[in-house]
Amino acid sequence: MEKLECIFCKKEYLLDIFSPFCPECNEPMLCPAPQKKRTFYPGKASPLEKFIDFLPLSKINLDLSLKEGNTPLIRLNRLMDNLNLPPVFLKNETVNPTSSFKDRGTAVAIQKAVSLGIEKIGTVSTGNMASSTAAYGARAGLKTFVLLKEETSLEKLLAAGIYNPVLVKVKGDYGQLFYKSFAYGRKHNIYFMNSMDPFRIEGYKVTGFEIFLQLEKRIPKFIFVPVSSGGHITGLVRAFLDLKKEGIIQKFPTFIGVQARGCSPIAQAYTTGKLKVKRINKANTIAHSIANPDPPGGNMVLKLIQENKGKILDVSDEEILNAQKMLAELEGIFCQPASSTVLAGLLKLSEKEKFEVNDQIVLVATGGGLKTIKTLESFKIDIHQTSLSKLENTISSLAHGT
Amino acid sequence: MEKLECIFCKKEYLLDIFSPFCPECNEPMLCPAPQKKRTFYPGKASPLEKFIDFLPLSKINLDLSLKEGNTPLIRLNRLMDNLNLPPVFLKNETVNPTSSFKDRGTAVAIQKAVSLGIEKIGTVSTGNMASSTAAYGARAGLKTFVLLKEETSLEKLLAAGIYNPVLVKVKGDYGQLFYKSFAYGRKHNIYFMNSMDPFRIEGYKVTGFEIFLQLEKRIPKFIFVPVSSGGHITGLVRAFLDLKKEGIIQKFPTFIGVQARGCSPIAQAYTTGKLKVKRINKANTIAHSIANPDPPGGNMVLKLIQENKGKILDVSDEEILNAQKMLAELEGIFCQPASSTVLAGLLKLSEKEKFEVNDQIVLVATGGGLKTIKTLESFKIDIHQTSLSKLENTISSLAHGT
Repeated sequence: MEKLECIFCKKEYLLDIFSPFCPECNEPMLCPAPQKKRTFYPGKASPLEKFIDFLPLSKINLDLSLKEGNTPLIRLNRLMDNLNLPPVFLKNETVNPTSSFKDRGTAVAIQKAVSLGIEKIGTVSTGNMASSTAAYGARAGLKTFVLLKEETSLEKLLAAGIYNPVLVKVKGDYGQLFYKSFAYGRKHNIYFMNSMDPFRIEGYKVTGFEIFLQLEKRIPKFIFVPVSSGGHITGLVRAFLDLKKEGIIQKFPTFIGVQARGCSPIAQAYTTGKLKVKRINKANTIAHSIANPDPPGGNMVLKLIQENKGKILDVSDEEILNAQKMLAELEGIFCQPASSTVLAGLLKLSEKEKFEVNDQIVLVATGGGLKTIKTLESFKIDIHQTSLSKLENTISSLAHGT
Repeated sequence: MEKLECIFCKKEYLLDIFSPFCPECNEPMLCPAPQKKRTFYPGKASPLEKFIDFLPLSKINLDLSLKEGNTPLIRLNRLMDNLNLPPVFLKNETVNPTSSFKDRGTAVAIQKAVSLGIEKIGTVSTGNMASSTAAYGARAGLKTFVLLKEETSLEKLLAAGIYNPVLVKVKGDYGQLFYKSFAYGRKHNIYFMNSMDPFRIEGYKVTGFEIFLQLEKRIPKFIFVPVSSGGHITGLVRAFLDLKKEGIIQKFPTFIGVQARGCSPIAQAYTTGKLKVKRINKANTIAHSIANPDPPGGNMVLKLIQENKGKILDVSDEEILNAQKMLAELEGIFCQPASSTVLAGLLKLSEKEKFEVNDQIVLVATGGGLKTIKTLESFKIDIHQTSLSKLENTISSLAHGT
């Protein structure tokens, strides 16, 4: 019988796909490690098959996959030179099928859904997770519910709506909507694979394994990850905990979770040494994809970060936009503001921390910039205007200018 | 000394990076095949290194790459079942670094630029090629000129402008702008890597080699490709010509080029049995990325298609939008309208052609749907509205409805 564990109460419970929360403390539960020895299968093309020993799946149905993962790790040479940094790598999750890391999690949750015979799935999201869940739901032929905030923009509705899910705009508190979705999901047999879904989190582990192999089995000194609800960083930390448990690694990376200052309940709790996250009233940041004022995985992130000697930082919108620009101008990589927090966080840390020349730093870029192109409308771009007859003069002056 | 060949005049000329056109007939020239025997290096992770024997490069500088390529080939099971088709696969070029196939070509052209010591590059484009060239130019630290139509939308300006190229809007005929860019580029040492650039075209060959290996060295019966200026299909056809020349394959795939009816000068010439493409006056289609009324590679595409027994089809905007919807709803893949022409073309061909049960069909999806989300604003999506207190009723009726 499949189980979930509460890492707070240190107890296991039978899996209830409709409510993955601890009956005692209400924290999200996670998939426990199996008893058997685990290994990688490097000959497999699909990351799900390559790392199946580390996933709560007994077989992979490739028909459900959109071939997520296998994303590049890109060395940022010009950035390193410009900022005098040790080796910095960007794990480019923006090239996943729906342009965000969410596909990693959805891919695993959808395998679980189909293996359990579930016919209806859902999610509560306004952005990346909505399109990802709708896309995988379409691919699997499942009826997919997407519950959205009332004020969701047309752009975001379309990015999920194109896959033809059941779209429902809900007036009222978004935090409550998250918890209510499980109650109504159970009643109507809809598996809500929301942000802290335990199978989703297992999918994020794969990114950690890929980073480890792409660095030729070296452990990076730092891994920077944007933090919102808490699922992504939980998965990444657990990837390295798994490797340690199996004796594959001895050292552990320092995880740096980064939040946007305008919505940083986890960073606030971390800074003040609290063990519990306090919800904030209102998010106010350009980094919408990581603006969860009431993060369901907040306490779990605090626990994992404290146990594993990580940090949680916050960065301002100005620092975020500056980092977004730097990544594009120096390295040709265009991320969402939420993703750019990782570079902003690195710049902030580098003011205090003295890096060694061989320290390896990994920035996890979570979502593509095209998804949030509207946030750039205030972005100042120089546009030169000319006509065909004056083109030569224009090019001449621009080519030889500075 | 490096050369280019004219496949019309069957002559070779010394490479002039600033003007890759035949001095006699003015057609675009291509990179000739080397004399040596060529092979694949399957152990290499980078596609450029894997297929270097087939590329006009003597070594690969991985620092210039954004790790383009290695894109998935996805079997479209639900589509096949719904439409009673033999095996259909989608080559998903939308997951390239800037979300289009252009990155394949830019990646090779940028290698060539840097190896020649070039410091300024440029392109004439309004869409996919603009962002791709600007991104790779930024990554390489080159000054990058992007020449655009006067009426280019802010969205497209931003998608290229984020990389900080020199953006120039030019009033006047777009076809003339294409040719003038070479003249001014030579004068001011700017390598314009435009749509029919011979090195760009060599980059597109890599997609063909990947398809061949992903199908386990079977030759698909049909390969569908959107056609605009002509560079992409030229590269893909040449990939299989290379394989034939090396004796690696005997059979040849049937290439089906697909144009949007509102801008289909190549399809018109093909249908009427002409050898030369006649420019049309005005493009009128939703598939902007393939709306070139005066395609510089048009005659080359006609020649390659006729010599290799392919076809050029056209499809209406309605068929395009229907195909875009089908790919998203049935398979979870969200493409640009331009990309969706390939499925529209397949549906059209399937009305006449009797497929065998083992025929393999490949659709090349060229660019991501998020780039053109504005074209969906007329798209009808059902949005249900409710409030937290009525959510249970709403979910109940939607879950059990049809």
